[in-house]
Amino acid sequence: MGENIGAAARAMWNFGCADLRLVDPRDGWPNERAVAMASGATMVLDRTRVFDTTPAAIADLTTVYATTARPRELTKRVMDPEAAAQDAMARMRDGERVGILFGRERTGLENDAIAAANIIITVPTNPVFSSLNLGQCVLLMASEIRKAAVEHRSDVYETGDSALAAQVDIERLFVHFVEELEEANYFWPEDKAAHMRLSLRNLLSRTPFTEQDVRMMRGVVRTLAERRRRKG
Amino acid sequence: MGENIGAAARAMWNFGCADLRLVDPRDGWPNERAVAMASGATMVLDRTRVFDTTPAAIADLTTVYATTARPRELTKRVMDPEAAAQDAMARMRDGERVGILFGRERTGLENDAIAAANIIITVPTNPVFSSLNLGQCVLLMASEIRKAAVEHRSDVYETGDSALAAQVDIERLFVHFVEELEEANYFWPEDKAAHMRLSLRNLLSRTPFTEQDVRMMRGVVRTLAERRRRKG
Repeated sequence: MGENIGAAARAMWNFGCADLRLVDPRDGWPNERAVAMASGATMVLDRTRVFDTTPAAIADLTTVYATTARPRELTKRVMDPEAAAQDAMARMRDGERVGILFGRERTGLENDAIAAANIIITVPTNPVFSSLNLGQCVLLMASEIRKAAVEHRSDVYETGDSALAAQVDIERLFVHFVEELEEANYFWPEDKAAHMRLSLRNLLSRTPFTEQDVRMMRGVVRTLAERRRRKG
Repeated sequence: MGENIGAAARAMWNFGCADLRLVDPRDGWPNERAVAMASGATMVLDRTRVFDTTPAAIADLTTVYATTARPRELTKRVMDPEAAAQDAMARMRDGERVGILFGRERTGLENDAIAAANIIITVPTNPVFSSLNLGQCVLLMASEIRKAAVEHRSDVYETGDSALAAQVDIERLFVHFVEELEEANYFWPEDKAAHMRLSLRNLLSRTPFTEQDVRMMRGVVRTLAERRRRKG
């Protein structure tokens, strides 16, 4: 169906995959509904090639993956999408040409295509509920391909325009807090004072302050202290 | 929209996630279109709770993730879906209650919700094309959650030096086999013939043939066939 082809192209291009090959598309090619559904991923559709048979579509590839449920009759190597994506990227870095076969929406891949593939990709879904459609399957695979292809830091602090504060700024903020709090007789009773300071210092170190955050907090402390002084 | 809620429920249940909370759903609750779209994931909808505000929806949680683009003005810890899923699972194993916020289809999450969240989740898409909808975003997150929750084998094996054969060579080898085997009346009885071909094709795809392997096997087939012909 044109809609499925469009959804697949869109899912691919979301993650930077662009080489789409079609085998004997039911509604012919090109297809207007595919273009409508692709919404912006037309670059992928423009480059799409059509083949009469699966063997023709994969002729130039060195390793072919087939997305399907675990095969019952055929002895096959089976990977999940993440492992398959890493495997595919490693092969590409070694100069291989790899491709991934996806079946028709309802019937899936035919046995001939599965037998011809080198490796099976099975998405580990909920054993009691699995209703992934073609576009979702392509989306998950393309997402894993991008993760395997692009080096990225997966856990970072986004600080906007302001850089993270240096420790000296945090320390000055702490000192500022302490000075104003001492003047307000906050650190009481005496035997708890040390632990109260420690807790405050620790709280400040636990929070990733930007330079802007530090300026803001200095302003907050100053404002509160002046308000108290005027009151006092 | 009901359709989006249904798609989200279905995507969640595909990967075993079942605790869906809605904040002020536009079309009220329950919603028939959500049920239609969920197609089988009604168990999730039956358990869905509705809240008036985001703070109410996340009140009992200890760590909240917000899915959104990288924040420009707010200083936030930013993770990709995989890192966030691993972080969330680690927290849950420590007894934390975690939740993930998703925004409305077009407008996304409001700034108040993003500010209240502890960690931002950003899907690393193609910089020049990103058109993930709500259901797709939930699908990718739920998939990562399941991966982080369920121990799975990520299959890797040694392929050796890769002078691997192209698929067209494997197909030619298969055709060569079939031609000679047909002439020798190998595919018998008739009702087993299709499966015998399938098994042979599958055997050829299961082994990573080098180009040299293919040449060798072609020679083997040719030699056997000629020997038979001389005998016959």
